[in-house]
Amino acid sequence: MKILLINGPNLNLLGKREPQIYGDISFEDYFIKLQFNFKDVELSHVQSNHEGDLIDHLQQADQDFNAVVINAGGLSHTSIALGDTIKAISIPVVEVHISNTFSREAYRHHSYLSAGAKGVIVGFGLNSYKLAITALLP
Amino acid sequence: MKILLINGPNLNLLGKREPQIYGDISFEDYFIKLQFNFKDVELSHVQSNHEGDLIDHLQQADQDFNAVVINAGGLSHTSIALGDTIKAISIPVVEVHISNTFSREAYRHHSYLSAGAKGVIVGFGLNSYKLAITALLP
Amino acid sequence: MKILLINGPNLNLLGKREPQIYGDISFEDYFIKLQFNFKDVELSHVQSNHEGDLIDHLQQADQDFNAVVINAGGLSHTSIALGDTIKAISIPVVEVHISNTFSREAYRHHSYLSAGAKGVIVGFGLNSYKLAITALLP
Amino acid sequence: MKILLINGPNLNLLGKREPQIYGDISFEDYFIKLQFNFKDVELSHVQSNHEGDLIDHLQQADQDFNAVVINAGGLSHTSIALGDTIKAISIPVVEVHISNTFSREAYRHHSYLSAGAKGVIVGFGLNSYKLAITALLP
Amino acid sequence: MKILLINGPNLNLLGKREPQIYGDISFEDYFIKLQFNFKDVELSHVQSNHEGDLIDHLQQADQDFNAVVINAGGLSHTSIALGDTIKAISIPVVEVHISNTFSREAYRHHSYLSAGAKGVIVGFGLNSYKLAITALLP
Amino acid sequence: MKILLINGPNLNLLGKREPQIYGDISFEDYFIKLQFNFKDVELSHVQSNHEGDLIDHLQQADQDFNAVVINAGGLSHTSIALGDTIKAISIPVVEVHISNTFSREAYRHHSYLSAGAKGVIVGFGLNSYKLAITALLP
Amino acid sequence: MKILLINGPNLNLLGKREPQIYGDISFEDYFIKLQFNFKDVELSHVQSNHEGDLIDHLQQADQDFNAVVINAGGLSHTSIALGDTIKAISIPVVEVHISNTFSREAYRHHSYLSAGAKGVIVGFGLNSYKLAITALLP
Amino acid sequence: MKILLINGPNLNLLGKREPQIYGDISFEDYFIKLQFNFKDVELSHVQSNHEGDLIDHLQQADQDFNAVVINAGGLSHTSIALGDTIKAISIPVVEVHISNTFSREAYRHHSYLSAGAKGVIVGFGLNSYKLAITALLP
Amino acid sequence: MKILLINGPNLNLLGKREPQIYGDISFEDYFIKLQFNFKDVELSHVQSNHEGDLIDHLQQADQDFNAVVINAGGLSHTSIALGDTIKAISIPVVEVHISNTFSREAYRHHSYLSAGAKGVIVGFGLNSYKLAITALLP
Amino acid sequence: MKILLINGPNLNLLGKREPQIYGDISFEDYFIKLQFNFKDVELSHVQSNHEGDLIDHLQQADQDFNAVVINAGGLSHTSIALGDTIKAISIPVVEVHISNTFSREAYRHHSYLSAGAKGVIVGFGLNSYKLAITALLP
Amino acid sequence: MKILLINGPNLNLLGKREPQIYGDISFEDYFIKLQFNFKDVELSHVQSNHEGDLIDHLQQADQDFNAVVINAGGLSHTSIALGDTIKAISIPVVEVHISNTFSREAYRHHSYLSAGAKGVIVGFGLNSYKLAITALLP
Amino acid sequence: MKILLINGPNLNLLGKREPQIYGDISFEDYFIKLQFNFKDVELSHVQSNHEGDLIDHLQQADQDFNAVVINAGGLSHTSIALGDTIKAISIPVVEVHISNTFSREAYRHHSYLSAGAKGVIVGFGLNSYKLAITALLP
Repeated sequence: MKILLINGPNLNLLGKREPQIYGDISFEDYFIKLQFNFKDVELSHVQSNHEGDLIDHLQQADQDFNAVVINAGGLSHTSIALGDTIKAISIPVVEVHISNTFSREAYRHHSYLSAGAKGVIVGFGLNSYKLAITALLP
Repeated sequence: MKILLINGPNLNLLGKREPQIYGDISFEDYFIKLQFNFKDVELSHVQSNHEGDLIDHLQQADQDFNAVVINAGGLSHTSIALGDTIKAISIPVVEVHISNTFSREAYRHHSYLSAGAKGVIVGFGLNSYKLAITALLP
Repeated sequence: MKILLINGPNLNLLGKREPQIYGDISFEDYFIKLQFNFKDVELSHVQSNHEGDLIDHLQQADQDFNAVVINAGGLSHTSIALGDTIKAISIPVVEVHISNTFSREAYRHHSYLSAGAKGVIVGFGLNSYKLAITALLP
Repeated sequence: MKILLINGPNLNLLGKREPQIYGDISFEDYFIKLQFNFKDVELSHVQSNHEGDLIDHLQQADQDFNAVVINAGGLSHTSIALGDTIKAISIPVVEVHISNTFSREAYRHHSYLSAGAKGVIVGFGLNSYKLAITALLP
Repeated sequence: MKILLINGPNLNLLGKREPQIYGDISFEDYFIKLQFNFKDVELSHVQSNHEGDLIDHLQQADQDFNAVVINAGGLSHTSIALGDTIKAISIPVVEVHISNTFSREAYRHHSYLSAGAKGVIVGFGLNSYKLAITALLP
Repeated sequence: MKILLINGPNLNLLGKREPQIYGDISFEDYFIKLQFNFKDVELSHVQSNHEGDLIDHLQQADQDFNAVVINAGGLSHTSIALGDTIKAISIPVVEVHISNTFSREAYRHHSYLSAGAKGVIVGFGLNSYKLAITALLP
Repeated sequence: MKILLINGPNLNLLGKREPQIYGDISFEDYFIKLQFNFKDVELSHVQSNHEGDLIDHLQQADQDFNAVVINAGGLSHTSIALGDTIKAISIPVVEVHISNTFSREAYRHHSYLSAGAKGVIVGFGLNSYKLAITALLP
Repeated sequence: MKILLINGPNLNLLGKREPQIYGDISFEDYFIKLQFNFKDVELSHVQSNHEGDLIDHLQQADQDFNAVVINAGGLSHTSIALGDTIKAISIPVVEVHISNTFSREAYRHHSYLSAGAKGVIVGFGLNSYKLAITALLP
Repeated sequence: MKILLINGPNLNLLGKREPQIYGDISFEDYFIKLQFNFKDVELSHVQSNHEGDLIDHLQQADQDFNAVVINAGGLSHTSIALGDTIKAISIPVVEVHISNTFSREAYRHHSYLSAGAKGVIVGFGLNSYKLAITALLP
Repeated sequence: MKILLINGPNLNLLGKREPQIYGDISFEDYFIKLQFNFKDVELSHVQSNHEGDLIDHLQQADQDFNAVVINAGGLSHTSIALGDTIKAISIPVVEVHISNTFSREAYRHHSYLSAGAKGVIVGFGLNSYKLAITALLP
Repeated sequence: MKILLINGPNLNLLGKREPQIYGDISFEDYFIKLQFNFKDVELSHVQSNHEGDLIDHLQQADQDFNAVVINAGGLSHTSIALGDTIKAISIPVVEVHISNTFSREAYRHHSYLSAGAKGVIVGFGLNSYKLAITALLP
Repeated sequence: MKILLINGPNLNLLGKREPQIYGDISFEDYFIKLQFNFKDVELSHVQSNHEGDLIDHLQQADQDFNAVVINAGGLSHTSIALGDTIKAISIPVVEVHISNTFSREAYRHHSYLSAGAKGVIVGFGLNSYKLAITALLP
């Protein structure tokens, strides 16, 4: 089983950006632990600050992967185009957020990605990714 | 570790009610499988159609359990009192929903419980409970 | 044919509460006349100020009755959980209101019960119940 | 007792228009059955696609009839003028809808006619008219 | 100078309809007094419950009159088409209301006619018409 | 093939009304050119300032024509009844607007006709009608 | 009969401020003409840029005058306190506006003064004051 | 004089729950001091997390007490039914809140109980109850 | 202890203005009784219809008094500046209203003063002032 | 004449994505037929999932083409920047949509591109592009 | 060149009020430094808690000064009258705020002064005034 | 000191695009003058129509520059991701706009960048950049 983890804007700053909200581990370090946890799953990850790249990755993943875990960061709340891509492809997509978006600014309470996602996992820190992969396993 | 699963209104109908949305397994049957999956965790579950009972259970759980998984059903979207209880107690509470509430009626997109919860898991069917317990394990 | 009449919060005060809006006959007195009008129908009635009780009664009625007439009072406008129960059970439910809720406060103009109900009857005084039973007869 | 049934826009298409919503009986056929049901009541019916005609009929009915049953179709949700007429005349007016307008588009949930009506009956198919006449009988 | 007074829905009921709001004089009686007050002005008046008629009268008045005084009743608050006509013709149009629409229901506070009118006169009873004619005199 | 062009309120003023928005050609003159462009299509056109007439024409067109092009003017933004008729008939209906309604007042940005139309063409001046007919040809 | 004309913020700039909207005559010049028009009425006028002064003047006028004409300028749309004063005093108050506030910014469409006023006159230039005085004469 | 103090959801946690907002004294301890302060008043108090219980207590208090002080907690902002009960009974009811609800989340700024209450006291800590009793004394 | 009572717009009319809402006692008469009730407190009172005066008084009170009781009348609902002053000074301020503002027009339900106040007392008639002083006593 | 067709996010999936909404022909296949239909027009087409690319293409087209047809997909509803570009360049731009966006989710009913476009064509399937080119021909 | 600095409500408290937001320097001290920085500019400053005074100062400045820098404090968000004055006078006005109003309460995000101002400078502490003067220099 | 100027969508068209709003000087020409004005500051500038590029530049600037001046054009009003980046990096960022966005369309009145910016400068034409650099100097 092959799963792609897609990270959106500013998630390349993980470990550096607002650590009181996002923690102090970089995603690369976390990813090594994650791969270790799921030895039978082939994990990959990409990050981009470009909405268009995220769409490209999602479309390509539909060819190359069995499932996607996506954290679109701030784009979650503004990108109808990303939400459309999730509906347009056929592999399952799980939406994750590191922080509890529901306890932050009101404009973070709605995500255009959620309606098309297989499911949504919010607020467990980096652990959200691990739960998402667990959710995708048969 | 002791975890209480609290189910709200109409979740006693699981397996019977709108199976195209909620599936056709009763919660009791699912619970047996769940306990089997987490042999080192002491699981209990309660269900009530009464908001007041859910609040009572949450308050009591603060004494008797290490964590709570709650699916408050339709009350999630209307009960400020339940959200207050989650903030008032000290053990972690994970909010779950069986269906993808974000792809249903607009009034199901907001939950008064989320802001105080440790995290939120939405849309994975009964599997949402399993993921929630996983999220609560150390 | 067996029909259950369910009355919600404050309807036990009928005949005493704001008579200029709700009239001066108690529901018990009215019920006797009602049973007299429908000799071939087995009528029962329950009242509770508890949302949870109304949900319990609706769920039980799905086993024991052929139809329900419900006046959920103030809960009509706030209880998503009650609306969910009506959608979850299979017997027909008719929603009634004694006063013309559409000519009162704006927050009484919307009911979460209506969308799942077989039909809605509003504003005919206690006569609303009689019309609802008529509507349920074959 | 003389009662006028007033039908608004597109109700002349009953039996032809979207039968999955409105059924497949024409109003003329239904009216014959209706008259048969209420032998002691003198029933008449008119239909028009013109808001102005409906207002004219309501005003005239105030002279010639004892009561009115009105289904203003799509005008129910937009015509303040029709609502004003109902308030301006002195005979009782019952508002009816064939389909359950509360389970359809949001713009069908509010009617400018309801506040001035004696009562409102929604969602019982053509049976709504019969219930309305029953409601108007002494 | 020729001025046309156009009255909309339900204003034919003046003197009969809700006299506590609209007074107890019919418009015909008032019109005689009005004509007497403005001996040098050729006054005419029309009334219709049909939006289309009001539009027709406004368009025709552009040919035959020097100015229009209009009370569109309930249509004031809903008819974009009427507002369009006022902007489309070249003679001045004064909008009047008998009652103080600003102290009534919120949906009477906005009129689609006002933006295109030469001016608006609200709340002086039938005297509003007299003031409007005065406003149109050179 | 027979196509009916239906024009709503104030479109009889074309060529006279606000020429900076609507141009200075009357619809009659334009229609002659239009018929000349589509020699194999039997074109007719009607205009009315009455919502009810537009509904009548649409219902009748369902019997006598293969398709309709409609410009309902200001009624587009307020008439649920007209939108209902478009959904109720079976021939295709194309909605057109002469001016770019999206660059005008906010209340012109929404049309109740669009959801039921085969398609919508906005802003090409009188050319919008020609494009609509082209769109209806096989 | 004694009538006080009260002008609010910036109306002291009449004749100088944005003449394309407000004209080029100062209020003092206009007032002389106005007094000339109503020889049997004792007219006075005050102006202030202070909300508190306008309230003081209104309260005092209740002792010293028979009626008030008020143009509260920008305060009309924001001052609940001024609206309260109009309701609190017993002499009639007519609200006037020089420009057609309904064809300007949306925040000028609502006035807190209107509901308590005897009537409202909008858009006739300085002539609005003359009409207001006419409206107040017996 | 007999006064009943009714406390709603989570107020049984007083002294334990979020002490920075609600203080660190339990209600039982406070009640003893309160009774001591009003020696001529017979005070009782009840607490429940159930909306239905609060309604039952209010209805019963109408028989057994001269007045009620109610702190409905989170239910204040969501329960139309509780607000209805306050209007339905005849003894005076004073609404209190311990914290200043107006400086907290927006959804705590509105209470369905206030309109029917004799008065509202907000933000004085537990002292709010004492002020409420003072307000009820003759 | 020195407490300043600040009254805003129109409260100088107490006893005269709308007595069915505000009662028929002037504030001066009431103040004498109030001083009599609190012999150990040095009470002063000021009234102004000017927002600026109220701000000046609040700022000055911060030097000269131990606490303030304020009834800002209609300004409560519109004056951010007054609310800012309350937050800017260090002595406690209690907000009072004579009438139950929550049962009146919607625009009276929100006060910009409340969030910064020590507490809020609404609806007890002139008694609200007495309760406020009681609340300020140690 | 040279016309550029610009397609936005997910339109590269045409023929594969949700065929019940978008049909089963790829844009490349359709483009060949389109070029065949307009032999005297030099057509080009580009597609990108990147908002920035679409802006770049529009700006470049202002140099190299006579007109643009744009289908910005999901970006239509969220991109003010794209709308700004259309206003900033001088060649005409026609906005098209394949599906009837007005009968889909509410957030698809508004497009930031429309106000600056020469015209808008919605809902005719791929035929919308053909109509747009026709609209741009002299 | 002569520039007037106008400060609104509570800005006389600078250095004392909420120093974590507004700093701990009084405006008088700052003004001395400011005058020192702009030796070729004749600076004056006034402060008032009265909206009317601010309007008076702005109107007078139009005679006596070449430009104005205004910080209207809380009035910025509520005073249409002040915004009108800025539009009514002919000298340039720069709006400044000391704190970043966009990161504070939502009601501070909109200012009625901005639309008529030459420009707006927000969030640079007292430095905002210096930047404003720089902006006004030729 | 090193400052990066970042320009967003369509600002490469400066001097060409809508000169009545944005002036007729290209940014390159202006930049030369700007560098001349601040001889002790090392200025750089980049422009992109891609949101992702702007985010990349901001993140990189956190390494290479001491401060940023950003004009994100249309993206200011829609990009939560850009606002997040500003909060995530540690160097100060000043937001500028050339035109007075507050006097244009309502959707330009709010910027997601402002809350995280050090300050905001709006409406001084290209001079806004110069003021921003001044604001960043010690």
